[in-house]
Amino acid sequence: MKRIHRVSAIIKILSDSPNKVFSLKQFCESFDAAKSSISEDLQAAKEVLEQLKLGIIETMPGAAGGVKFIPYISDEAIRELQSELCERLSDSSRILGGGFLYTSDLMFDSALVKRVATVFARKFQNCGADYVTTIETKGIPVASMTAYMLNLPLVVIRRETKVSEGSTVSINYFSGSYDRVQKMSIAKRAVTPKSKAIIIDDFMRAGGSLKGISEILSEFEIEVVGTGVVIAAVEPEIKKLESYCPLLYLGKVNETEKTINVFANESIF
Amino acid sequence: MKRIHRVSAIIKILSDSPNKVFSLKQFCESFDAAKSSISEDLQAAKEVLEQLKLGIIETMPGAAGGVKFIPYISDEAIRELQSELCERLSDSSRILGGGFLYTSDLMFDSALVKRVATVFARKFQNCGADYVTTIETKGIPVASMTAYMLNLPLVVIRRETKVSEGSTVSINYFSGSYDRVQKMSIAKRAVTPKSKAIIIDDFMRAGGSLKGISEILSEFEIEVVGTGVVIAAVEPEIKKLESYCPLLYLGKVNETEKTINVFANESIF
Repeated sequence: MKRIHRVSAIIKILSDSPNKVFSLKQFCESFDAAKSSISEDLQAAKEVLEQLKLGIIETMPGAAGGVKFIPYISDEAIRELQSELCERLSDSSRILGGGFLYTSDLMFDSALVKRVATVFARKFQNCGADYVTTIETKGIPVASMTAYMLNLPLVVIRRETKVSEGSTVSINYFSGSYDRVQKMSIAKRAVTPKSKAIIIDDFMRAGGSLKGISEILSEFEIEVVGTGVVIAAVEPEIKKLESYCPLLYLGKVNETEKTINVFANESIF
Repeated sequence: MKRIHRVSAIIKILSDSPNKVFSLKQFCESFDAAKSSISEDLQAAKEVLEQLKLGIIETMPGAAGGVKFIPYISDEAIRELQSELCERLSDSSRILGGGFLYTSDLMFDSALVKRVATVFARKFQNCGADYVTTIETKGIPVASMTAYMLNLPLVVIRRETKVSEGSTVSINYFSGSYDRVQKMSIAKRAVTPKSKAIIIDDFMRAGGSLKGISEILSEFEIEVVGTGVVIAAVEPEIKKLESYCPLLYLGKVNETEKTINVFANESIF
């Protein structure tokens, strides 16, 4: 196997499994190459990705030694993504009445979702989370892709108790969006007590659902170490949670004039 | 930019956007290289991926010309995935009673889901689908990842009508698993009439939900051109739909003896 093959193969294999640690030995065996060659290949792979701003290869020293791929999206690519999303969200045909916007096409657009997830993965790479959590339904693809990027399990909180979830813990919470008390439930076996979680969701208004998620997790003494939402409404100004990171802000939706005010979170990093 | 950099960069860029067509011109411009060099680079990239069985680079001739990455998983890797899943599913602690198994940890394990999705992507690569559809909730990650691999939009059918879906079409159907009539609804603006869809779901027993999905799609004259499920129960023997492709079969679940019989679909390809 030639050097050019090994370098491309390493990039492909590492970036197919983000945040998974591979030992140098694995590559030596797969490619039948000496450790010194693989080290050089890794250096070349690192340079390519840095130059392209497509990710980071991190080498961990020590007896075991290992290497992993960390997903990355440049500030420039984030701004591009934000302005593309703002444009698509400003389309007046999205207005559904009651302040609701149709966003399913975006939340279920996997290529777009992957870019959004890379932003959250970059944001929460080093917060020591054990899980990514979300509440069904529209946030699942972005949460699932974020979990993939961070190599973490995804925990989906359900709205109704399902027999297929086994024994569950449920809470009631007030949803401002729907102006009523809603229920959420989590499978007991989905989580380990005293761990850490990131919450990822598609949309927040006052943050009732997100607060609910944090409460249901606190039943297991799970600490929320980061919250990412694709879109956060500007109003109400007072939110039910202190810290959250939106990709975009949704301002006024004027149903009469058919205008939607949506803008980027400039200070996402 | 050296050749080794260009080849690895091409592999990374193409495989990050499966089934998306890139023009050779794009690469010429990005890498400031002649068309002949890029053609040679693509040939090298093709060879690396073929050798590793990690995907196919397809070049389309013609005036426009273009190149795309087609995800691939080898027969051997499929068998490995199946036997790993069988082993994990046979764990008796998954038995929940009423014939239900706890599978959320697997369906929400993004790295595993990606491998499963690659099987479905390989299976349905050439069936001309315009969408991937699923019904909430547990099938969403695998359906979303399949959609990503095939570069298709995902359509999630909801159990309840939501204001955020706009105008919807709903049907009632009989679910054998839950032994009752259930409802499903689809946003009108999520689909285009007279198109084609693949259905991906986590589990089927008699196929009531899948039949329901196909019925709700037929309201829009959408043809189902492929159905993939992660796990299909062996019983009941008579299913409500004719054609479906499971990765695994679930046989008898003996609650007294705490045994689960699960085995691979050997003829998946």
